[in-house]
Amino acid sequence: MKSYHMNMGAGLQGLVLREHARPEPGPGEVLVRVHAVSLNFREIMILIQGRYPLPVKPDVVAVSDGAGEVVAVGERVTRTRVGDRVIASIFPRWQDGPFGIAHADQLGGSLDGMLTQYRALNEDALVPVPSHLSYEEAATLPCAGVTAWNALFGGKTVLPGESVLTLGTGSVSLFALQFAKMAGARVIATTSSGEKAQRLRALGADEVVNYRDLPQWAAEVRRLTGGRGVDHVVEVGGATLAQSLQACAMGGELALIGSVAGGGAAVEVNTLIASGASVRPIAVGSRAQLANMARAIGANAARPVIDRVFTFDQAPAAFAYYAEGKCFGKVVVKVSD
Amino acid sequence: MKSYHMNMGAGLQGLVLREHARPEPGPGEVLVRVHAVSLNFREIMILIQGRYPLPVKPDVVAVSDGAGEVVAVGERVTRTRVGDRVIASIFPRWQDGPFGIAHADQLGGSLDGMLTQYRALNEDALVPVPSHLSYEEAATLPCAGVTAWNALFGGKTVLPGESVLTLGTGSVSLFALQFAKMAGARVIATTSSGEKAQRLRALGADEVVNYRDLPQWAAEVRRLTGGRGVDHVVEVGGATLAQSLQACAMGGELALIGSVAGGGAAVEVNTLIASGASVRPIAVGSRAQLANMARAIGANAARPVIDRVFTFDQAPAAFAYYAEGKCFGKVVVKVSD
Amino acid sequence: MKSYHMNMGAGLQGLVLREHARPEPGPGEVLVRVHAVSLNFREIMILIQGRYPLPVKPDVVAVSDGAGEVVAVGERVTRTRVGDRVIASIFPRWQDGPFGIAHADQLGGSLDGMLTQYRALNEDALVPVPSHLSYEEAATLPCAGVTAWNALFGGKTVLPGESVLTLGTGSVSLFALQFAKMAGARVIATTSSGEKAQRLRALGADEVVNYRDLPQWAAEVRRLTGGRGVDHVVEVGGATLAQSLQACAMGGELALIGSVAGGGAAVEVNTLIASGASVRPIAVGSRAQLANMARAIGANAARPVIDRVFTFDQAPAAFAYYAEGKCFGKVVVKVSD
Amino acid sequence: MKSYHMNMGAGLQGLVLREHARPEPGPGEVLVRVHAVSLNFREIMILIQGRYPLPVKPDVVAVSDGAGEVVAVGERVTRTRVGDRVIASIFPRWQDGPFGIAHADQLGGSLDGMLTQYRALNEDALVPVPSHLSYEEAATLPCAGVTAWNALFGGKTVLPGESVLTLGTGSVSLFALQFAKMAGARVIATTSSGEKAQRLRALGADEVVNYRDLPQWAAEVRRLTGGRGVDHVVEVGGATLAQSLQACAMGGELALIGSVAGGGAAVEVNTLIASGASVRPIAVGSRAQLANMARAIGANAARPVIDRVFTFDQAPAAFAYYAEGKCFGKVVVKVSD
Repeated sequence: MKSYHMNMGAGLQGLVLREHARPEPGPGEVLVRVHAVSLNFREIMILIQGRYPLPVKPDVVAVSDGAGEVVAVGERVTRTRVGDRVIASIFPRWQDGPFGIAHADQLGGSLDGMLTQYRALNEDALVPVPSHLSYEEAATLPCAGVTAWNALFGGKTVLPGESVLTLGTGSVSLFALQFAKMAGARVIATTSSGEKAQRLRALGADEVVNYRDLPQWAAEVRRLTGGRGVDHVVEVGGATLAQSLQACAMGGELALIGSVAGGGAAVEVNTLIASGASVRPIAVGSRAQLANMARAIGANAARPVIDRVFTFDQAPAAFAYYAEGKCFGKVVVKVSD
Repeated sequence: MKSYHMNMGAGLQGLVLREHARPEPGPGEVLVRVHAVSLNFREIMILIQGRYPLPVKPDVVAVSDGAGEVVAVGERVTRTRVGDRVIASIFPRWQDGPFGIAHADQLGGSLDGMLTQYRALNEDALVPVPSHLSYEEAATLPCAGVTAWNALFGGKTVLPGESVLTLGTGSVSLFALQFAKMAGARVIATTSSGEKAQRLRALGADEVVNYRDLPQWAAEVRRLTGGRGVDHVVEVGGATLAQSLQACAMGGELALIGSVAGGGAAVEVNTLIASGASVRPIAVGSRAQLANMARAIGANAARPVIDRVFTFDQAPAAFAYYAEGKCFGKVVVKVSD
Repeated sequence: MKSYHMNMGAGLQGLVLREHARPEPGPGEVLVRVHAVSLNFREIMILIQGRYPLPVKPDVVAVSDGAGEVVAVGERVTRTRVGDRVIASIFPRWQDGPFGIAHADQLGGSLDGMLTQYRALNEDALVPVPSHLSYEEAATLPCAGVTAWNALFGGKTVLPGESVLTLGTGSVSLFALQFAKMAGARVIATTSSGEKAQRLRALGADEVVNYRDLPQWAAEVRRLTGGRGVDHVVEVGGATLAQSLQACAMGGELALIGSVAGGGAAVEVNTLIASGASVRPIAVGSRAQLANMARAIGANAARPVIDRVFTFDQAPAAFAYYAEGKCFGKVVVKVSD
Repeated sequence: MKSYHMNMGAGLQGLVLREHARPEPGPGEVLVRVHAVSLNFREIMILIQGRYPLPVKPDVVAVSDGAGEVVAVGERVTRTRVGDRVIASIFPRWQDGPFGIAHADQLGGSLDGMLTQYRALNEDALVPVPSHLSYEEAATLPCAGVTAWNALFGGKTVLPGESVLTLGTGSVSLFALQFAKMAGARVIATTSSGEKAQRLRALGADEVVNYRDLPQWAAEVRRLTGGRGVDHVVEVGGATLAQSLQACAMGGELALIGSVAGGGAAVEVNTLIASGASVRPIAVGSRAQLANMARAIGANAARPVIDRVFTFDQAPAAFAYYAEGKCFGKVVVKVSD
């Protein structure tokens, strides 16, 4: 079987295909035949930017997100059967509850990832694929989907009728928009493009604010909420934090997404105080969150937004395409049929 | 101006219309010109059954639920203006947080109610009417609507993808069905009638179980949830508690509605233990819950189910019709145009 | 090495000592040299009563609760070292969050238990022993301690100044008394004996109610709380549920302990409704709860109450002594020095 | 009767004593004979610095915090009697739940304050004085006490065994230290003075870090928590936020106190992200929080730290003394015996 390997900062050329023996599932493990993976900004950070907040082992099998079919089970496996369609959770040891350092092992980081034909994984790290989703769709969920889910339901839970602000058209923001509408919330989304505004509205956004036309968009968000501000912000930018805080209601919550945000931006302490809003940094989520999100997608027959699907052979091209940053929705690599 | 008065256990004949001077709003109060009220089972308990768990003063102005227009404001009123369309909260002193004995004063109970042409109320006891709703629709919300909202969002909050069981076609159950769908949940409803099953499906129920055909309906609910049981039950019956517990998932929550349930039913302690589900008794809800519910109804353009609207003169007929127990949706009395 | 084995309902004679090869720790596992175990009512249920709500495998190594020293580590072990003093969590797969059927494997039940000289366990199922505790003391914590912790902090968290009712002098109740005092709560305890009342007061009980002298003790508990009732009840009896509900404040929470309570007792639905208190059934707790409890015991230099310590050879005598039901505190078997 | 009045930025000379008629309690109100008040940094901001985040009416009666005896009750008063010893809640309309703009009226700000001999207040704005406290002690609780309580129990509740970091020896920090110990937490306090370190230890601090000796005190706090960081920070400084975040555990919570902190300090977004800790700005708290805190103080026989008590005539001297910023504990003005 074949896997794509990579090293920190190796660049697009550093994505190397190699041949291996198919692994055997150990006790508690199952063997997953990977059908599809999806790319996240973490892949660009590791391969191209050469920086990542968590450990990355040398020559790691690339990509955190993947879905496939169980083709063999090891000893002591109790909840999984051959033929099950499964999604892998990014932090295989993070079952539930808050994140802890003991859960830090990550697929495509300190552990081998999913851009491979077969992967042996502990059955407790897997979640069933919603029955209406293809493997390509299911592969989009672990990183961006769970991050958005955690942002909306991992702290102050979004209630029907509350308002949610999403920023831009990255995949976390698109998932957040879809999940917030699923929960009966009112969604205000920002973008700089009229064409993307249309697509955001088609996904359910109640209001779209063009931040190029309105550089002080926080004031517009306040206006759209009768002066109160939004109840939830899914902050993915970092540099936008001060404005997001100004757009957020007293007592609201701003989920601060770690691996995407960044840069050298700073925020005044007085802005934090004056907002009256809590800031909650998040880092993806637990297997329980992945499972709850998959269940919600199933119950609401929701479908992730996919921009483009590449074949296994085209994986380097998929990375290159994704690195351009022009996609609207997820970039997927189909590993096998 | 005119008001309908009643006494505990006076019977339908005991609903008496009387003439009064129009009240003046005191400090912090506003005068509401009542446009519509709606009836709840509490009215039947007080007027006909002569029993109610909270104090009812003699000759009380009847009916807890009403909506109207602000026509005058008293001193020190800061958040309400003449012309505002408002809904009255049943417990005017219960602002937010858990219920306490200090909040027990209740419209149409220890305090005069809303079946009157004008009512002076503290501005902190009022909530804006969602703009798309008529007064008749708004008047349906305080008791049955808030009870359903509290059942779903006052304890373990319903998340998208969770399952909710509603029982029968009383107004609390219909609101619970609508709110649960609004929140992205999967709803299983019970009824004994094929025709009502159709109406429940039209309101969004994913599954309807006929409890006449399937007296052991808990087993059917488990089957429909892959053996897990539902995450939430809105239990309105009392006598159904043991079966509801059997239909509820380990770690789930059963909201036990006080004023409707009752009778001499009992449940075995072992049934409580074996269910692994929490039982949470509830009694309507706070002004904050009414406000949050109204906001959700506004954001989702939802409409309460109304069975029939009577005129002010027909109020006794409205009580008689409601007492027959055959309605599907709320019975409303239009007080003024 | 030696282990005590048992079968469902085999009786005290059925506790059989057998010789085995010392196990090897597999991937992710460590080998624990067991120093001490403690007995719980579950052992009596399995061995003597022949009933238990969870599966028990034939010829299982007995006893769920134990503590010992790590003497070897397997591959891929990252957070545990040789020499670590550890407590085993009863449900090794229940890491955090709510209980689920996937976590149901239990030491001394579907899995071999701790009344053995060496036990290989997944490192994620272990928690450090607080440094001031002996192994005998640490071995008392997994079942009774975590149950009490879950009762007080797993649902509505006990706050300083709230009141907690404990029933009798079983180990769950003694732990609950100690933890509630640790959290700044006011504790009302019940007992039928003047001598035990003294011991409860010595452990910190603010009030002790003699339920033999006052069969309607709920009224006395209400009186002691100015009519409000207590905020939390740790209900271990089952048959006492109706009175406990009458002693509990509106909005309070009653934790219903599964494996100890029982019998054919029933409670009227109207009693549940009238209490206004939530009933939350619990079943021990997660590894995270064990870890949090151990940390609290460490920070507060608390010590579990031990009634008597037996040697490994005396294990059958320990079971017989515990079965008499006369102990005040835990019964411990010292497995090795 | 006499009252001290003030205007924004009037300076110490601007605190003016004037004579009035004794007020009459209106409907729902009681008349409180004020016995004592205590000073907070807000008084300095208003009177001397001439800046305050909330509205201050001209010629307002000074001081938010006070306690006294009910000497008369108005109509419709149901829960308060003549002779009751009461504490006034700072935001009389904020009963419970999250803060909202409708609750913004504040004693000693938009409403007259407590530095007066008699004050008519709505009974719903009052809380009973714990029986073991004097009026001088009770008067210290509304602002600093409730702020500390909200910091520890208004968001992620402090559990026994968790660690809490307090900064310096301001009154919020001293209350937080006392409440955290009451809740069974481990407290790490900072100070720059060896003598104050002694006093902090006497109040229960488990560890004291001298931030003058260790300018990088966050590293020391991490060391004292085995590298994890503290679970809770009560951040009162503003300029210390970046270090506080570095001292806080992943998943921990930092309560950011508004009115004391400030200045032009800023924090990098990456510091917020890297901490993994939530930042929750708080502004005192509700009447329910004051009531819960008073109950906790009662149940634990705790006593607030008072630095010095002045007479009513000496009120200007009390302001001057407090403005020096050298006190350890609260500055109180005794209004009447």
